[in-house]
Amino acid sequence: MDGQGKRSWSTAVSDVEAADVFIRGYSLGDLIGRLSFSAAAYLLIRGRLPKPGEARMMDAILCSVLDYALKKPGTVAARYCVSANPSMTAGLATAILSVGEYTLAPDDAGRFIAESFAAAGQASGADDTAAAAEIDRLRAAGRRVPGFGHPNFRFTDPRAQKLKSIAQAEGCWGPLCDWYEALHRAFTAKTGKPEIVINEVGMMAAILAQMGFTPAEMTGIALMSSMPGVIAHISEELQSKVRIRTVPDETVEYARPRRELVADLKAAGWTGN
Amino acid sequence: MDGQGKRSWSTAVSDVEAADVFIRGYSLGDLIGRLSFSAAAYLLIRGRLPKPGEARMMDAILCSVLDYALKKPGTVAARYCVSANPSMTAGLATAILSVGEYTLAPDDAGRFIAESFAAAGQASGADDTAAAAEIDRLRAAGRRVPGFGHPNFRFTDPRAQKLKSIAQAEGCWGPLCDWYEALHRAFTAKTGKPEIVINEVGMMAAILAQMGFTPAEMTGIALMSSMPGVIAHISEELQSKVRIRTVPDETVEYARPRRELVADLKAAGWTGN
Amino acid sequence: MDGQGKRSWSTAVSDVEAADVFIRGYSLGDLIGRLSFSAAAYLLIRGRLPKPGEARMMDAILCSVLDYALKKPGTVAARYCVSANPSMTAGLATAILSVGEYTLAPDDAGRFIAESFAAAGQASGADDTAAAAEIDRLRAAGRRVPGFGHPNFRFTDPRAQKLKSIAQAEGCWGPLCDWYEALHRAFTAKTGKPEIVINEVGMMAAILAQMGFTPAEMTGIALMSSMPGVIAHISEELQSKVRIRTVPDETVEYARPRRELVADLKAAGWTGN
Amino acid sequence: MDGQGKRSWSTAVSDVEAADVFIRGYSLGDLIGRLSFSAAAYLLIRGRLPKPGEARMMDAILCSVLDYALKKPGTVAARYCVSANPSMTAGLATAILSVGEYTLAPDDAGRFIAESFAAAGQASGADDTAAAAEIDRLRAAGRRVPGFGHPNFRFTDPRAQKLKSIAQAEGCWGPLCDWYEALHRAFTAKTGKPEIVINEVGMMAAILAQMGFTPAEMTGIALMSSMPGVIAHISEELQSKVRIRTVPDETVEYARPRRELVADLKAAGWTGN
Repeated sequence: MDGQGKRSWSTAVSDVEAADVFIRGYSLGDLIGRLSFSAAAYLLIRGRLPKPGEARMMDAILCSVLDYALKKPGTVAARYCVSANPSMTAGLATAILSVGEYTLAPDDAGRFIAESFAAAGQASGADDTAAAAEIDRLRAAGRRVPGFGHPNFRFTDPRAQKLKSIAQAEGCWGPLCDWYEALHRAFTAKTGKPEIVINEVGMMAAILAQMGFTPAEMTGIALMSSMPGVIAHISEELQSKVRIRTVPDETVEYARPRRELVADLKAAGWTGN
Repeated sequence: MDGQGKRSWSTAVSDVEAADVFIRGYSLGDLIGRLSFSAAAYLLIRGRLPKPGEARMMDAILCSVLDYALKKPGTVAARYCVSANPSMTAGLATAILSVGEYTLAPDDAGRFIAESFAAAGQASGADDTAAAAEIDRLRAAGRRVPGFGHPNFRFTDPRAQKLKSIAQAEGCWGPLCDWYEALHRAFTAKTGKPEIVINEVGMMAAILAQMGFTPAEMTGIALMSSMPGVIAHISEELQSKVRIRTVPDETVEYARPRRELVADLKAAGWTGN
Repeated sequence: MDGQGKRSWSTAVSDVEAADVFIRGYSLGDLIGRLSFSAAAYLLIRGRLPKPGEARMMDAILCSVLDYALKKPGTVAARYCVSANPSMTAGLATAILSVGEYTLAPDDAGRFIAESFAAAGQASGADDTAAAAEIDRLRAAGRRVPGFGHPNFRFTDPRAQKLKSIAQAEGCWGPLCDWYEALHRAFTAKTGKPEIVINEVGMMAAILAQMGFTPAEMTGIALMSSMPGVIAHISEELQSKVRIRTVPDETVEYARPRRELVADLKAAGWTGN
Repeated sequence: MDGQGKRSWSTAVSDVEAADVFIRGYSLGDLIGRLSFSAAAYLLIRGRLPKPGEARMMDAILCSVLDYALKKPGTVAARYCVSANPSMTAGLATAILSVGEYTLAPDDAGRFIAESFAAAGQASGADDTAAAAEIDRLRAAGRRVPGFGHPNFRFTDPRAQKLKSIAQAEGCWGPLCDWYEALHRAFTAKTGKPEIVINEVGMMAAILAQMGFTPAEMTGIALMSSMPGVIAHISEELQSKVRIRTVPDETVEYARPRRELVADLKAAGWTGN
């Protein structure tokens, strides 16, 4: 219950004057037509204008998720929602709420990379000895490395590698990324499983960590990346005129007991019902 | 309860193969690094690649809202949320849910522009006689025109005009936009209030309608535009270490009656409590 | 932007002292063990203790919805949600968001009953002439009467009739209920469709309106009534160990176009990609 | 991606026939007027009718939270929400989303009680030696015991004790509750802090665990308990006519930098803007 004094709020994101809004200090009117949305996102979240390479990196990262058909629970949930409550806002909120522990969220990987790097005290990031020690420590504790492995890709994940090459070209690669790759080398060597890849979410997390984003911000960026697809799905559902979408009976195993209320209440000790 | 047959779902947004995702038919791997996020959003929602001018228009529109400090209820609600439940997803969903009837949403304006244009049967859009008739009809019915008026701008809204000039430069201006301006001319003439502007949300709606977006999609795009700001606010709140943010007592008028339960229950007819 | 002065908040729901909470003026400690939850809900929402009959009426109304298997979109959406994000709070919020325009919500009926009754100026409620005039007016305007009709019940809806008989026995029946029945008589007479019933939602709305609840509160009560069922479904889904529930491919008609990005970008006017 | 076969769903909560709904096997029509809402909640969640004492325990537990004025972030967030989007469903979903890590949720305590009891292998629950060992283990690991301590109560928490006495009177007390009290005895003895109480949430968790509810269900029940208060607050806000509630400027420390976009873009390496 801290921070409830006279000035209980503090923010540097934007401020409003009579006839203008200042985004991190820049007049909103000036931004329109000058910044790409990705660059504006960078400005808002990181607090400063991106360099051109950083803006291109943001675009690449925001284009690396996009959509996953009806194989993403949040999209399906959103379509059920708007079949009953035809509201874009309710549908978008629904889609967002399905992102969590079992979905590919970069925050776990981002937190792990930043914390293990800090703990190892590596300036260069490419220290294979420190990485091997960290992997030993994790395996002894029975913990898995977030961002490793993919159901369909073995030895290499092409989308992850594409992000890496863009990061290198745009000056967004750095010690945290090297450290994550060193961990990966140590992991595949020690487990004897060279087919286990750094997946796209792991790579995204490494690059975003290097760019200075916090784990929570990474999740926000991943959610933002999925917004256009969700908007498209909700719009498609609204235009399909399906109303009150249900689960077809033939796909459900319904327990169909039939019970007697009065007798069972009596048996449970109720009198006078 | 339509559409619940064998193939109860139908979608053209994306589809998944073993090792690739196809976004409106394009390999996701190809998009990364080639499309800006705004262009990808256009592709997902409209179903085809944007022309360069359409992509720049999307960037301008997505940069025209961005953030509104602690004067947007959804942002404040999201910060309260994460002070208790430190989750980016819960915070983003909360922010989205505060957008509705009393907030500046473009869907009302978009629906009005498209419907009144279709009803007037105007191909050119610039028919002042038809516009005057429509304004007469609205005023007789006591209805207001969505997208007109602004608390701080009189005679002209600079951000709306900026969107207009970009739309004209990028080939995104057209009959629906002309029609909306004709309605505005008729309105200011008939009411004798030339100071009433087309505001930014009205202009955004006119341009998005011209580009072929549905009203629900317009709301989605406006929400997407506000995402980076909300992410920044949530991140700021999480890093502020404020926990369980409350409303300071001195700003609340609490009714503080004190009542006797047993006596009042008896008076209400309860026995045996 | 009203009410933002020094005391910008005002509430009479509860207030907190150092070691006690006062619910509408009653010590929370006193309520535990003395009030049923339904009675407490009445106290919180209506601001005073219910009479015993009012508490029984609340119990009956709160038991009249409960659950609707996998035929309620919100329940299905909530199960998709927790298969990906195993969180009770995210699941409950998701279920709530699917309630809206196309679902059976009592607020429409409640608003209609209260407004038409006030407009007709009927103290008794049983004025068939006024009711007939109102039905004529509605039919001329092409509007339907909320709360009339049911897919499976003709001539009578047993659950609605049960609520009616409880309302009469518990002293919760009154002029607003009579008025709604008079409207129903006029409707069936004028349309020649005696098989059209007052359904459960209509009856619930009439009784809640008579008890003094606002339309928004009626929706809240209907949502509360569905909470235990949603909790049960979410718990069932969490225990089922289904992770990342998707839509089976064979039930989806996927458009599967395959397009060439580079060629299409060029055709759209992009250069240098 | 399990369970996606022909019968990909399985549920025992309810099922629907042409003209009836069966709740855990009981005709919904029979339940109305016979069960209290608390008893119906027990039936839905636990799968069987409660005994009278279990139903009274449910009522007591559902009455032990209720409301916490404007000191609960979710309530405040919900009021901000409906000041902009006057929707009961959006408001209720918002309130729910603010429950999480920093709020008093019984699931942590419930999980801890059940797991530590199982690990200790105690049938009776009152084994002080096992409890002392468990407390030693926790303290060595630097972990706190969920459900212990309260900002305003020392030595005893009257609401927790009230729940205990009701549980004992209604036959809902048992080994898991004894075990939790044994842990508490061991904790206060070992820390020398007899003033640290078992708080209400801890006691609620112990009793609900004893009654067979899962941790996730406990959170659901706690959320349900808070629904009437949230409905009351949302209704109050809607009736207050406050629109677009914001944070008063004088309570915010706004960073108000003013920056030059063109110059800063140039400095960041952009050309041609």
